[in-house]
Formats: sequence, structure tokens, C-alpha cells
Amino acid sequence: MIDAPAGLAGAGVCEVLERRRTGRVAASDWVAACLARIAERDAALRAWVRVDAAGALAAACALDAEPRTAPLAGLPFGVKDVIDVAGLPTGCNSPTRAGHVAAAHAACVARLVAAGAVVLGKTVTTEFAFVEPGPTRNPHDPARTPGGSSSGSAAAVADHHVPVALTTQTGGSTIRPAAYCGIVGYKPPYGRVPTEGLVYLAPSLDVIGLHARRLADAARVAEVLEARPRPAQPAAAPRFVALALPGLRACDPSALAAFRAGLRRLADAGATVRDAGLPEDVERLDDAHRTVMSVEVARSFETLIAADGARLSASLRAFVERGRATSGDALAAAQAVIARVRQALHAFAEDGEVLLTPAATGEAPVGLHATGDSVLNRPFSLLHVGVVTVPAGTGPAGLPLGLQLADPHPAADRLFGAAAFAEAVLARAAPVPQERAQ
Amino acid sequence: MIDAPAGLAGAGVCEVLERRRTGRVAASDWVAACLARIAERDAALRAWVRVDAAGALAAACALDAEPRTAPLAGLPFGVKDVIDVAGLPTGCNSPTRAGHVAAAHAACVARLVAAGAVVLGKTVTTEFAFVEPGPTRNPHDPARTPGGSSSGSAAAVADHHVPVALTTQTGGSTIRPAAYCGIVGYKPPYGRVPTEGLVYLAPSLDVIGLHARRLADAARVAEVLEARPRPAQPAAAPRFVALALPGLRACDPSALAAFRAGLRRLADAGATVRDAGLPEDVERLDDAHRTVMSVEVARSFETLIAADGARLSASLRAFVERGRATSGDALAAAQAVIARVRQALHAFAEDGEVLLTPAATGEAPVGLHATGDSVLNRPFSLLHVGVVTVPAGTGPAGLPLGLQLADPHPAADRLFGAAAFAEAVLARAAPVPQERAQ
Repeated sequence: MIDAPAGLAGAGVCEVLERRRTGRVAASDWVAACLARIAERDAALRAWVRVDAAGALAAACALDAEPRTAPLAGLPFGVKDVIDVAGLPTGCNSPTRAGHVAAAHAACVARLVAAGAVVLGKTVTTEFAFVEPGPTRNPHDPARTPGGSSSGSAAAVADHHVPVALTTQTGGSTIRPAAYCGIVGYKPPYGRVPTEGLVYLAPSLDVIGLHARRLADAARVAEVLEARPRPAQPAAAPRFVALALPGLRACDPSALAAFRAGLRRLADAGATVRDAGLPEDVERLDDAHRTVMSVEVARSFETLIAADGARLSASLRAFVERGRATSGDALAAAQAVIARVRQALHAFAEDGEVLLTPAATGEAPVGLHATGDSVLNRPFSLLHVGVVTVPAGTGPAGLPLGLQLADPHPAADRLFGAAAFAEAVLARAAPVPQERAQ
Repeated sequence: MIDAPAGLAGAGVCEVLERRRTGRVAASDWVAACLARIAERDAALRAWVRVDAAGALAAACALDAEPRTAPLAGLPFGVKDVIDVAGLPTGCNSPTRAGHVAAAHAACVARLVAAGAVVLGKTVTTEFAFVEPGPTRNPHDPARTPGGSSSGSAAAVADHHVPVALTTQTGGSTIRPAAYCGIVGYKPPYGRVPTEGLVYLAPSLDVIGLHARRLADAARVAEVLEARPRPAQPAAAPRFVALALPGLRACDPSALAAFRAGLRRLADAGATVRDAGLPEDVERLDDAHRTVMSVEVARSFETLIAADGARLSASLRAFVERGRATSGDALAAAQAVIARVRQALHAFAEDGEVLLTPAATGEAPVGLHATGDSVLNRPFSLLHVGVVTVPAGTGPAGLPLGLQLADPHPAADRLFGAAAFAEAVLARAAPVPQERAQ
């Protein structure tokens, strides 16, 4: 657990917005507190590519000069560096992007800014949100990865640099780093949040999501991002299904044990919890994800590879090659698998059940050379399902674990209530973690 | 010009909402007036696949029972039948969809409903929003196509069945039918409006848009769809570029003459108008569109073709074959063309210029066997640019012509002001069209 700073940087979205509503907090104070925390901590953490302190303070002062009516007025946030912020480069952690400057805000950024939120800067991504890591460290243990590809967003939120940050997910890029950093992650259903102004990786999978430290904070921001109400009162007696995904076989035994212990706590608190699986096609989902994603990544990078391929990583170039070599038959087979598994999800949706798995295969791995395994997240990216992770205690090394909740219903309106229930139960029941010096 | 009905069905969005604000119109009256118009007119026009009269009236009565605060409270709208409405089939004008029922509203529908708008039903689309026509007729001349693929939305709005309808565009499916039916069409920039709940045709091109009879009405609804302010006051002195697209060579001479006459009227009214072209890559844009779209359409329909291909049209199957046969090199070349033309658009964007072309190659063609030529619309779909069409007088057969405006700036915030200017000028200057009996 990270030492929460006293004052505004340590506070959550809802808490500060409520204090602002009653007139006791200036937007410039909120922004300044976050900037001070970044200044103090980011030389070691490396969560940020670029901090726009002058722009953020100017925006905050302008908000302070007018009557506060915007729903997120003054909220400081970070933006993953594959999403456009007007006037700043969208660097994508790639030298091929040198000289780029975004002409306009991405739609998701514009929406938050219109609601009064303030861009603090751009957070570190892996190369083009694929696998090649950036320099960011896990705030709970600097020898470990924060996860990726939304590495900087997760680390910055967990380390109290900002209360919320925008992310993306194509495989497990929002949920996995949130779990590794002990925070809340939300990947909306595919197509829910507008993607205008995103540098696409695999367009039929790419989703814009967010990181926050509390579910209620995530819901408050999701409400603006999705332009629909997202109540996050804990559900009274949610119905859960522990889903037998093949990726569970890749889990550390301790992570599985923690997951089963969490299920018992949920049941003890009044939830219905049952085990269930999916038809045998579920065994082919991961191959299907790789097939669809590689074909789309190949398309996304065809031009750049031809013009400037030597400056892309070997891993990205190899994945493009894989996509190029994929046959139409293989793609059709993958899509048939997806269609059949989506069909099988209907039964859970009709019964009002929310699916549960661990959010990652274990604690954040040691080393910054890779960002961990997204095998438990990829199925839900492929199936276009809305997913939340909430903190679920710690593992044997004292690092965070996460619970992953997925709502198979297309409206995905049970997700936040179920996640709020789980957040409250698991926070209560988890052992109090050791304070770790940075 | 269609005989506008007296009363609510003939009125526009802004007008009725203002009358509702001051308390003189019930939502149920507005919905009932539209239902009556549909009942009277649609047996001949065939704009609707399904009208949910009971559901719409129930929703309207519920709105009447509560204080009206929602921004679009009571607004009746149609939904193109490739977009999900909870509880109704999403038929896509294909027998392969028999038995489908949508479990949830598409995000765009949910957004309008949350703002108080009322779904009247589903409007006719071509087969899966590709080329095979539905039964809809042009309300200005029943022997002619209304255009497509958003055939029913355009015809229903033009014939005063509803003041607004949701559409999609992958090539020219929003702009062309709007022009043929003499109404306003808006295709937002790619990625701006969430696509959750859309049956995709070519995901990197598909955009959700709308039809309305007046630009101010389109802006009022776009504001909710895009969750951002869309002021539509006419720009004071807009800067226009008449863009030399290759598709102009396919225009009827009379349509070109009307376009040039329109340019003169815009200049006379205070706009700056100049002619300009694009680099020679513009000649390859249309091939690039076909390449990208066919590859994506092949992917979208791989599974359905394998399972149920005999019930898809020959034209769709042939296009899938074309996509399957497209090489990676051809795709890379297409993407390079797109990148270079996008680059060339920057100069116009920086200068604050809005691009102009005719919205279609002429009046709506005779016959219902095809929906006309989208050659002037496809470039802007491929380039991900926001586009509006406004009515621009009539052609030699007395049928509507449209002006197409495209804003090359990613923020696309000049588009509505420029379009409002053009709408006002061209409505003033156009010859008064002949009344046509239905």
C-alpha cells in the first residue's frame, strides 16, 4: 500500500468534488497538489511522458474565476499517450512519432474537459499500446512492472499523482495494470466510449477506459465519458459466476487461493456465487484473439512499417508479420469461435449474473522488461464485454491482487453495483497491507 | 417539395421543443401526430420496417407524467435497422437475421432516450447497409430511389414522419439519401459517436449519423449524440474551398451548374470561396476506399457466409470475395494513399477552410433497383472527416440537390456554422419548387 499523501492529492474524485461543491476547495489548489506530488515522486516512478503544469494551472485558475457548475470542475486527470490532447504530442512511446502535435482533443478528452476536468499531462504507454515497455515502475515495488500497456496511468493513479487517468485496452491493458498497482480499472463495453483521436492498435478491439482509486470515483468519471448515468451503489445481493477460463491454468496457486477466499467472502456477505464454464470453444478464444488482433495490427502498421519500420520494435514487427501471414480461413474460424462464445454468454446475461475471475495471474512480476500476462483479460476484450477490476488483497510478496468482474449483458448496467459490492467486501476482509517505503 | 402537414408532424425539433418548454405541447401529442402521419403515408412510401406505436405512446405518456427537464423530452425519432433498439429485432434487411431481438439499446439510442427522445421504430436499410436496396421510395417521386443505405431514415424525415432519424455511413449512406430527399444529413467525424450496438459493415469506416429537415434540428440532436455543445448559428463570413474531387467527373452537367451557381450565391452573401485540389493521390482515393472497405466487409461476413451464405445477396458475396482476394501489399498501398491525402488536408484545416462539393452526382435516379452513386461521399468517409449536407435547390426534374460541406479539422467545430450559413443562403436563393402530389 502506498502512503497516501495528506491533503488533496490523496483524496478521491467524489470527495473533492463534494468539498468543492460546498465551496472550500479551489480547482487551482487541487491541480497544484497533484503537480506537487508528481514533482516529488515522478523522477523515480516515471509515470509521465509530459506534464503540462502551466496549461493545467491556467485551466484551473480559469475555472476558479467562474461559477462552478460543471460536473467534474477542477478534476485533474492524466491521459495515456496514445490519446490526443490538443497542442501536445501523441508520442505513443515510439521515435516514429517525433514532431507530432495533436490538432484537437480526442473525443474522450474533450468530453472530460467540457465537464470541467483538467488535463495534467500524458502518461507512459508501451510502444503504441502493444508490448514493448516504457520506463514506468510499480509504485508498490520499483523493481516490478506496473503492468501495461497503460503503465503510466496505473502508476500515476496508484501513487496519488492524479485521482483518475484515461487508458486503453485491446488485450488486458487497463485491467492488468490496475490489478498490479492495487487500483480500480474500468474497460467499458466495446464501442461505448468514442474513440475519435485515438491512435488505433486493433480497431475492432480497442476501447478507451480509465483508472481510479475507488469504484465510486471511476463511476463518476464514466458517467461523463459515456454520457449516461452510472450509479455505483453496492448491489444488495449480486449474483456471481466464477468463470472457468482456460487462463486460470496460468495463475499462481496463491492467486487462485486468494480468488477462492474472495469468493467465500462475497458469499458470506450475501452474494450468490456459483461455478460455471463455457462451451469447449472457450479453449480457442485466446488463439482467436491473437488471430483477430494480429490481422488488425498488421493493417494499422502497414504504412509505418514501409516508411519507418526500422524504428519499430522487433516484437511489433513480428506481430505484424504474424497478421500478414494469417489466412482468411483462419480469420473466419476465429470469428466463428467468438460468435459461439458470445452466444453462450447470453444465458448468464439473462440470469442477471456477473462473471468473476482473478484480474491477473498473480502479483506484478519482477523486472521492467515486460508487463506481465493478460491471458485472463483478453477473452473479455475479444467478446466486447464491459469489465471492472477492484483491489482484492495482496499476494505472498505483499503486492496487490485484483478481482475481475465482467457483465455479459450488452447494457452492462449491473457491473458497477456488483463491483461496488465486491470492493466493499474485499476491502473490509483483506489483511491490512504493510506500508512500503518508496 | 413535400406538402408539410399542419401541426406537430410538420414542425421541427427546435420549434416543438421550444413550444414544449413553454408548456403547450404534450409529448404524447407529438408522438401521436408522427404516428398518424406514418399511418397515412407509409403504405406507399415504405420507410419503416417496424413501428412501435404502443411503446412510443407509453414512453410519451410517461414523459408527460413527469416534470420535463430532459433536453429532448418527447422528440420522436427513427432508428436505421442496423442499430439495436432493446426489445426489437435488428433486421438489417436480411433473412439471415430472422429471430433476432436486441437485448439492449445501442449507445446512440440510449443517449437519445436518456435525453427524453422516443423511439418510433426501425427504418429501412439496404441489406446490412451495403448496396442491395429495400422497398423504400423517394417521397418526392415514388418512381425514384430515396438513396441508401439509410433509405428509410431519409424518406421518413423528408416525408414528415419524424423530425429526425439515426443513420450510418460507410461510403455515402447518410449524405447521399439526404441530398436525394432534400433534407439535412450529418456524418460526424469517425469515432465521435459511440458505435456500441451497431451491426458493423466495415468497422474502420462505419459512422453513426443523422437526418433532419433543418440544420438547427440536426445540431440539437448532435449535441446529445456527441455529448458536446454544437452551436449552429450561421458563421459570419465562412471560408469555403470548392474541392476538385475526381468524382465531379461523374456529375450531371446540371448538378455541376447548380453547384457553381450555389458557390456564387455563397460568395455574394459574404463567404470567401476559392477553388482548390489535392495532390495526385486523390485520384487513387476511390480505389483505396474500395480496398479498405472490401477487406473489412470480408471480415465482417466471413462467419455468416460460411453458415448462411446462400441467403446473402450476390452483390454482398461478390464484395466479400473481392476483399478476400486483396493482398496485403494492396492494403498497404491504400493506407499510404489515405495518409498522404490526410496530410494534404492539414493546410485547409489550418486556414479554417471548409470544403464544398455537390452532395451527389445529380438528382435521385429513376428506379428502386439501386440507390445511386456515392462517389462524392466516399472520400470523406475514408478520410474520417465530418460532413454535412444541406438542401441546395432542385435539378431539371424538379428533384432536390444537396451541397456537401466537409470540415478537415479534427475538431470539426466550424462545420455547423458554415452549414447554417449555406442553408440560409441556398434556401433563400433557390427557385420555389413545384408542389408534387404523392
